[in-house]
Amino acid sequence: MDALDQMLEQTGGGGFVAFGSSADANVRYLTQFTSSDPVVYFRRKGERGTIVVSQMEARRAAGESSVSVMTRSEAGLMDIVRVEKDRVRALAIMITRQVEGEIIVPANFPLLLAREMEQFRTVRADRNTVEKMRAVKASQEVKNIEDVQRATESAMKSAIGLVSRATIRKNVLYRGSVPLTSEFVRESMQRVLVGAECHAMETIVSCGEETAVPHIIGTGPLHAHEPIVIDIFPRSERTGYYTDMTRTICKGEASPEVREMYQAVKGAQAHAAERIRPGATGDEVHQSAVDFFKECGYESGDRGFIHNLGHGVGLEVHELPSLGPGGEPLRAGNVVTNEPGLYYPGLGGVRLENIGVVTQDGWRCITGFAEQLEI
Amino acid sequence: MDALDQMLEQTGGGGFVAFGSSADANVRYLTQFTSSDPVVYFRRKGERGTIVVSQMEARRAAGESSVSVMTRSEAGLMDIVRVEKDRVRALAIMITRQVEGEIIVPANFPLLLAREMEQFRTVRADRNTVEKMRAVKASQEVKNIEDVQRATESAMKSAIGLVSRATIRKNVLYRGSVPLTSEFVRESMQRVLVGAECHAMETIVSCGEETAVPHIIGTGPLHAHEPIVIDIFPRSERTGYYTDMTRTICKGEASPEVREMYQAVKGAQAHAAERIRPGATGDEVHQSAVDFFKECGYESGDRGFIHNLGHGVGLEVHELPSLGPGGEPLRAGNVVTNEPGLYYPGLGGVRLENIGVVTQDGWRCITGFAEQLEI
Repeated sequence: MDALDQMLEQTGGGGFVAFGSSADANVRYLTQFTSSDPVVYFRRKGERGTIVVSQMEARRAAGESSVSVMTRSEAGLMDIVRVEKDRVRALAIMITRQVEGEIIVPANFPLLLAREMEQFRTVRADRNTVEKMRAVKASQEVKNIEDVQRATESAMKSAIGLVSRATIRKNVLYRGSVPLTSEFVRESMQRVLVGAECHAMETIVSCGEETAVPHIIGTGPLHAHEPIVIDIFPRSERTGYYTDMTRTICKGEASPEVREMYQAVKGAQAHAAERIRPGATGDEVHQSAVDFFKECGYESGDRGFIHNLGHGVGLEVHELPSLGPGGEPLRAGNVVTNEPGLYYPGLGGVRLENIGVVTQDGWRCITGFAEQLEI
Repeated sequence: MDALDQMLEQTGGGGFVAFGSSADANVRYLTQFTSSDPVVYFRRKGERGTIVVSQMEARRAAGESSVSVMTRSEAGLMDIVRVEKDRVRALAIMITRQVEGEIIVPANFPLLLAREMEQFRTVRADRNTVEKMRAVKASQEVKNIEDVQRATESAMKSAIGLVSRATIRKNVLYRGSVPLTSEFVRESMQRVLVGAECHAMETIVSCGEETAVPHIIGTGPLHAHEPIVIDIFPRSERTGYYTDMTRTICKGEASPEVREMYQAVKGAQAHAAERIRPGATGDEVHQSAVDFFKECGYESGDRGFIHNLGHGVGLEVHELPSLGPGGEPLRAGNVVTNEPGLYYPGLGGVRLENIGVVTQDGWRCITGFAEQLEI
């Protein structure tokens, strides 16, 4: 009896219904099936789940999915569309015929489909039961994340190698006769990932002033003596699991201010790592980094440490639990990042991000990659 | 005044609100902003749109987005969360303070957020106003699709080159001393795409019996004298636009049955291409392919031609309009695929897919790549 069964028991719901392609992490998690077209997942109280797919997908679904498979015809859709021309309403009729009583759906369930289902049945939005299930990883899920992390470290190594091997002319980094750019470093990392069937979106390779804004991905030539932030969150094409990793490097000597920021960030990361354990709240762990930075003379909030310390990672790159204000108690099996950062316009930004799994009595860091500013 | 303004005018809605990351095509289309975290988009009646982003994203949003930018603080969220601890409710309060009167949201708007907004305001689910807007492409959007199609043709060329250069031993294709596999061909295509900042998910490289099931992606060594279906739908990382392309090839001589199927598919594609024009319905164009296949002695439905003739392509790989049963009238600016296919377990499958734009009086094929079965 998992958390979804318990939720149905507690709410008195007759069944749980999700709808979406496998781009929807809840659907992918519940069905273990990858599909770019939306599928219906339903679980009647006390039963295991079922997915409803097109005839064309039935064979593949039976092979891949961990749940029962039903075709749309078997679910009666073909008969329904003969009388009901509206596709959304037809789908709603099909769904409500499969589940008795009140229907519980995920928070992100599409409103229009819910409205049509409400013509026949009470529909209630669950808050985050599946998200909370997803937050506690099974060992295979941790392994999936470890696999993509290993590929990511190869990509990071190649990126740092490019910067390390670059020559400097008038403070610009060169690869042979051409400037070494953010774009080139990004593409070189992607090439490493392709070989491991992984893919990264919006990888950050920012430099200098850009680094003071955490989400600027960076463009153009890289410079010496300025911080370079490399933040990459690839996903395995095969398993769908993400990882997340950041290093800040500097070709040549960094400014005294950036060096100090780097030491503070590294210290905050080590300080927080010791506080991640079952029972500690994400709020407390985040606050421990805020306190550490304060001791070092750095603010948090609008300037300095301006984001959360970390977040869960799994089938989404940002998922539960949060290591931030309001973050709930951690549980063994949570996979979270530990990523303090400091940002000052005019000086630049520094961020270091590791990922690890909450164990019975602490946190096992999955990232195995040195932290060194000047290269 | 665009279709969204007209919809607000007709429904009497006070404003339109969307919510999501740029993985949501409607949000990306309306905001022209890429974000892996969700943003709120709202448009009050008679005004241009606004996005609400975190403080951290404000600068980037102002640079990238085509609409007004407001931070969550400016939208009052920080004040609201002081009294309202529930995050979804706080967001609902923030949204309902920005828009007066009835609020219209997209069909896929998250149910829980809608429920919270309904505490304060009537919320109505729109059916597909934005999806219909997205179906008619501006010239820049067509150019975005053409760009990713060019990269895709390079990738297809490299894939076909691998098959063409392969040697045959006991009917298995070899690349030097190792069998040429689906996986290798897929990876080689991905490598070509990386150089053009494009990326393909779930590329199909299926062979033999696998090809009879359109959505099996294919695994293991490729074989001579059997159909090989290569179906790739990459997306530009920069613009977010997709394309979609399929070729069926055979190393060496194909069976007479597969040759005949190939000729019929090619014929159906040419036949349908002449029927795609403004005013023709997607239903009619699909039916023209069904009729053509019937003339050639092939069934449609459960066997033979078992899927739709085509679909719109843009920020989603499957979007409006549909070239299938129930498909609505086409309009100039629609970008649609033309992809007839035949599938027979025991014999295999053949599919050919081009993409093109509906013009004032016909259809301009964007795909510029030969169709040849035996290589």
